[in-house]
Amino acid sequence: MVKLSDVNSKLQKAHYAVRGKIVIRAQELEGQGKKIIYCNIGNPQALKQKPLTFVRQVLSLLEYPALMDNPGPAAAFPADAVARAKMILEKNPTGTGAYTQSAGIPFIRQAIADFIQKRDGITADPNRILLTDGASKGVQAVFTLLTNKENDGYMIPIPQYPLYSATIELYGARQVNYFLDEKNEWQLNALELERSLEEARQNGINTVAIAVINPGNPTGAVLSKENIRMVIRFAREHKLAILADEVYQENVYAPGLKFHSFAQIMHELGEKEVTLFSFHSVSKGFLGECGHRGGYLEIRNMPDDVYAEMIKLQSIGLCSNVDGQLVTYLMVAPPKFGDASYELYEKERAAILGDLKEKAEILGRGLSAIEGMHTHIPQGAMYAFVRFDLPHPKGTDPETMTPEERHKYEAARDSKYCLRLLEDTGICVVPGSGFGQQPGTLHFRTTFLPPKEDITALVEKMKRFHASYVEKIKSA
Amino acid sequence: MVKLSDVNSKLQKAHYAVRGKIVIRAQELEGQGKKIIYCNIGNPQALKQKPLTFVRQVLSLLEYPALMDNPGPAAAFPADAVARAKMILEKNPTGTGAYTQSAGIPFIRQAIADFIQKRDGITADPNRILLTDGASKGVQAVFTLLTNKENDGYMIPIPQYPLYSATIELYGARQVNYFLDEKNEWQLNALELERSLEEARQNGINTVAIAVINPGNPTGAVLSKENIRMVIRFAREHKLAILADEVYQENVYAPGLKFHSFAQIMHELGEKEVTLFSFHSVSKGFLGECGHRGGYLEIRNMPDDVYAEMIKLQSIGLCSNVDGQLVTYLMVAPPKFGDASYELYEKERAAILGDLKEKAEILGRGLSAIEGMHTHIPQGAMYAFVRFDLPHPKGTDPETMTPEERHKYEAARDSKYCLRLLEDTGICVVPGSGFGQQPGTLHFRTTFLPPKEDITALVEKMKRFHASYVEKIKSA
Repeated sequence: MVKLSDVNSKLQKAHYAVRGKIVIRAQELEGQGKKIIYCNIGNPQALKQKPLTFVRQVLSLLEYPALMDNPGPAAAFPADAVARAKMILEKNPTGTGAYTQSAGIPFIRQAIADFIQKRDGITADPNRILLTDGASKGVQAVFTLLTNKENDGYMIPIPQYPLYSATIELYGARQVNYFLDEKNEWQLNALELERSLEEARQNGINTVAIAVINPGNPTGAVLSKENIRMVIRFAREHKLAILADEVYQENVYAPGLKFHSFAQIMHELGEKEVTLFSFHSVSKGFLGECGHRGGYLEIRNMPDDVYAEMIKLQSIGLCSNVDGQLVTYLMVAPPKFGDASYELYEKERAAILGDLKEKAEILGRGLSAIEGMHTHIPQGAMYAFVRFDLPHPKGTDPETMTPEERHKYEAARDSKYCLRLLEDTGICVVPGSGFGQQPGTLHFRTTFLPPKEDITALVEKMKRFHASYVEKIKSA
Repeated sequence: MVKLSDVNSKLQKAHYAVRGKIVIRAQELEGQGKKIIYCNIGNPQALKQKPLTFVRQVLSLLEYPALMDNPGPAAAFPADAVARAKMILEKNPTGTGAYTQSAGIPFIRQAIADFIQKRDGITADPNRILLTDGASKGVQAVFTLLTNKENDGYMIPIPQYPLYSATIELYGARQVNYFLDEKNEWQLNALELERSLEEARQNGINTVAIAVINPGNPTGAVLSKENIRMVIRFAREHKLAILADEVYQENVYAPGLKFHSFAQIMHELGEKEVTLFSFHSVSKGFLGECGHRGGYLEIRNMPDDVYAEMIKLQSIGLCSNVDGQLVTYLMVAPPKFGDASYELYEKERAAILGDLKEKAEILGRGLSAIEGMHTHIPQGAMYAFVRFDLPHPKGTDPETMTPEERHKYEAARDSKYCLRLLEDTGICVVPGSGFGQQPGTLHFRTTFLPPKEDITALVEKMKRFHASYVEKIKSA
């Protein structure tokens, strides 16, 4: 029988906090009848966000095209949904049930190129676009492509989305941490990038790429144009590829801020040397279609022979799921002004984004008003990464600990806090140690996806919980 | 810029013949207006096989549940499709757009356990069943789990489905070939298994598992009960896990033959030591829903701590796509006798399987009648692995070549043959070297999925092509 000692040691070392122990405990408590407010994962439709009607109408027609031949049921669909489904069937006559080309259905890759053109005012090459089962699979494909030697390393932000650290561990690559600047709204810092790269060099690591998440997960930060320019110059100087995780590009709430794609800024800089991988997904934004596992990966500055390896890699898994490809298509080609569905689509879109913005404000304002909690109103994405203060128990002095002891002590502190929070209040958040944080600081990541009344309740509950938790430590 | 020399050398070495050069050339020719008969890949719905109506009706309703609230459109669906969709929504209220548990939706895992119970008369544990994006992803997950050290190896059949060789190469494991016995209808041979394992041992390989494909890809063979028993005893004796690729379990055509699952035979033998991974998929059988990327993986004889690693691995990619999970559910829980859709479902099912059986016969009979071609009527799956004879060009004697030269010469011979076949006739098959074959033999794999008239035409065209190809070599 396969024993734990037989199991891939890299897999054993990998961690993925977003679905870790606390979540398993939350499910147990829920099974026992406790109300849980799930703030651990960006899964909007699990928290009552409704899908966009147009997207689902077109999918429904494509799963069962006979509906379109029958005037009765067809009348239940707006004319543009039927027209769109027919157009898709014409361009992809094998339907939802056949494997597609490894890179994805050609007309969809063209539509993505058009979307980038429209978004950024720059051309994109459909033969450098690959459809993937969500952005995660795209990120993993790039790590597979670029990890060649044991000392190949990737710069990743701290805090980061743990897909990155888990994949690096799993693929046997080296993790190179750069800290985001909490004092400066979690932007990247040029000196810190240099420090991080230099430290890696001294550790014998051959850094091959830098990953950037914008808008940020777990930070909720939106990067400025100047910050992105700085990263591109840095990558160019040090011959790094860039992985730009841009799945939250539609989720920008802060007045005056705007999403800038790496592709566009690279174009502005006339950058033709740095290889760019940028990722997008149907799971976030306002669609929130996590279950459909759709997304794409666009590549810039890559020679044909390298791209052929990328295609080969995709071909081994055959292709991404067709419904996910179709949702990706509908994301990049929504109803146009004048189409029958345009008004409803815009209304649904505005309602979802408006609601998220409002919830970001309730959460950010509420938590930052709590004594001992530090955060801002999230600028974007679906998360706040909240710093909190805890006293040390009597007789405990981290200053006297070894770095390992201290690391362990601190990771246990935030995990214990979040677990207690869950048990006492039903609020399920993820400890900061799952994303990484500056030594000596404590955080948790919370989404602001639950319904508004739950967010309001969460703020209240957290206030009471935090005060009593601190009190208990003090009086222990 | 990322150069080829920077790219993962394991990826560069991996090959996946089913979507290789010949297929790319076929697409080019098709673009130029040539009619191509695609026999390279098991993609039924790309070759005009219709989806099962019930499956698509339920999916259509689940993508757009509002259809069920509206008596007009709802009337276009049979009562059991509507009832089924409602039941699914009740058990999985977050619908098709939310992430599920990492292992898949619980009630679907239970339904799979019930399906195994019904198929094999044995119990199955829903907590050892994982939903995957097609069987390929399940196979790759197992390779990830079990590959721990550089000398860990996997026994795979030759010929094999190249997912196995490609994944082994990609993950840095070692490939241990065992030859299937062409003279004995491609069954496994006990002496050959021993020889193969011993050779691996001598090469310093630590063999951890044996992969078996039943019914066979590319061989079309259905393994006998006795053959499966032999493999299980062999695995037990040598402490190997078994990967049982059973995606063609519904595709058995030969009279008197029957699919036997490894799970069932292990149960019969009272086997409680050998870890078994068995794979199933919605892409094959009679559903042919390749585009939906659905499938599952059932595990037997695995301790909890190892299973937890498997779950963690799935969690890093979040979950498999929900529509694929739903199609898997509908595969294992079809309409029952008395349901409104039962009759149509059975009729469609019988028509597809009957058609495949007939086409297997046309292909097998036709090709084996060709001078210089050797094959049988495929017993199962969707393929024939056809051996063919070619004379050596004047002045070429493989006996005088080094093993490397000979290997290269032979691989070039079948590739050249298949490419010429494509150019001359539009028939797209995959060279045997893509699957592996006994040194000194030549094969190609062809599906029998195209419409009947295409299969008949294929046999005729192949006859003429083969004769003229042989003639050209002789007269060169």
